[in-house]
Amino acid sequence: MEISRCIFCDIVLGKLPCHLIEESRLSICLLDINPLQEGHCLTIPKRHVPYWHEMTEEETSDLFNLSRKVSLRLMEIYKADLITLYARGRRIPHTHIFLVPTFKNDPVDRHFNALEGFQEEAYRLSFLSTPKELDRVDKLLRYKRD
Amino acid sequence: MEISRCIFCDIVLGKLPCHLIEESRLSICLLDINPLQEGHCLTIPKRHVPYWHEMTEEETSDLFNLSRKVSLRLMEIYKADLITLYARGRRIPHTHIFLVPTFKNDPVDRHFNALEGFQEEAYRLSFLSTPKELDRVDKLLRYKRD
Repeated sequence: MEISRCIFCDIVLGKLPCHLIEESRLSICLLDINPLQEGHCLTIPKRHVPYWHEMTEEETSDLFNLSRKVSLRLMEIYKADLITLYARGRRIPHTHIFLVPTFKNDPVDRHFNALEGFQEEAYRLSFLSTPKELDRVDKLLRYKRD
Repeated sequence: MEISRCIFCDIVLGKLPCHLIEESRLSICLLDINPLQEGHCLTIPKRHVPYWHEMTEEETSDLFNLSRKVSLRLMEIYKADLITLYARGRRIPHTHIFLVPTFKNDPVDRHFNALEGFQEEAYRLSFLSTPKELDRVDKLLRYKRD
């Protein structure tokens, strides 16, 4: 097929243009065309992997180290407070890591501050943080140890 | 000093309790005590590293592969749509990666949907997505290539 259904696969193959910032063996970094802040980049694996947790060990190391390398460059250029990193995959199911230079009280900073406030104060989440509930989830999740 | 100023360093040293879910050579995974969803975990490097982009290459590979391993387990147990991953470091400056099992229309899903809506529609960000502005940032950021 000439036409892919995935915009990021088409970018990797050179069928669609992008602002390519950096490339590694298994991943590329490009500018987000709807930046949340100047310098907002995306890193994506060259292979079509819907969700980040479905990458191989090698792809994971490659992609997050490319993200780190680009982020060090963003920190140097923009003197940001930090680079906010996040990954979902809801709308474009080809893994993409958001890298957003973040400054105190800018939109992304306020957005995550709001999420953290919600995390600690939402009444309807409070049952999840009782000792009994945390113990139950702990037993459910933890790997067997000696 | 007996008393550290960093709660995550104290957890790594065993001075404070935690719900330890998994451990790798350079990182640990524990339950977040204020879960945004059941199974919400944090992965942290054993070494005190304030921001995720300040880890070494080896720590980056170790931490994100531990995150991936735990996320596969979370997906298996909870049958979530995906595991939302994010990292900032604003309030506790010891790198911690959020891993949140995410379902359609749950709080984290709606939160990131709102951020994505803002990203594409906010009038005050629109100047950042003009071709001229993207070209300027591209030239500023990209590594020199032949």
